[in-house]
Amino acid sequence: MPNQSGSLDQVFQALADPTRRDMVERLVRGPASVTVLARPYAMSLPAALQHLQVLEASGLVRSAKAGRVRTCRIQPAALRTAESWIARRRAGWERRLDRLGEYLAAQDDQQNEGGTL
Amino acid sequence: MPNQSGSLDQVFQALADPTRRDMVERLVRGPASVTVLARPYAMSLPAALQHLQVLEASGLVRSAKAGRVRTCRIQPAALRTAESWIARRRAGWERRLDRLGEYLAAQDDQQNEGGTL
Repeated sequence: MPNQSGSLDQVFQALADPTRRDMVERLVRGPASVTVLARPYAMSLPAALQHLQVLEASGLVRSAKAGRVRTCRIQPAALRTAESWIARRRAGWERRLDRLGEYLAAQDDQQNEGGTL
Repeated sequence: MPNQSGSLDQVFQALADPTRRDMVERLVRGPASVTVLARPYAMSLPAALQHLQVLEASGLVRSAKAGRVRTCRIQPAALRTAESWIARRRAGWERRLDRLGEYLAAQDDQQNEGGTL
């Protein structure tokens, strides 16, 4: 998967900005036009469009034009890719912690059997 | 939580680079010294240190010096924060999809009852 790393870079980069996370949050509730998406922010339409371009390039958002209105939609697959990358690492860490716990418990048992404490 | 958004910015930013994700991956398997962490990469020690600084600033990694060796450890809380941000948005999107499915099913029932199709 040669694109996997490139797209993870772009998804995490896209999520590293509060305005873009806010746009994702809005689009999770349903599709929205670019104008509606840009409205809550104290920024120019070109600035909002730039954030949308980053979101589209990452695969988190797709947009399509119908007449004069461009409508944006969330693409959940990109969210899932990023989520599962993190989840696998967290799970790996928790497994290591479990093994450490078992090891310490076994050490404890050995010590108790030896009657040294 | 005034720092919440700032730290999400930094965690996602830290994860937006393949070398830094690789370092996270390595540290999930256990603590490592800076030298060991830097070894697999074709980069200078200062360049590796710069990546580690980004990881530390984001809260994903903590390091401590003992004698001449600086040891790095993963901080799973930051991983969990990023994971749960994404998971909540994905869940929100899936709920919306469920509601849409229910709505369409109800429309279908109404049409069938009306006998129009």
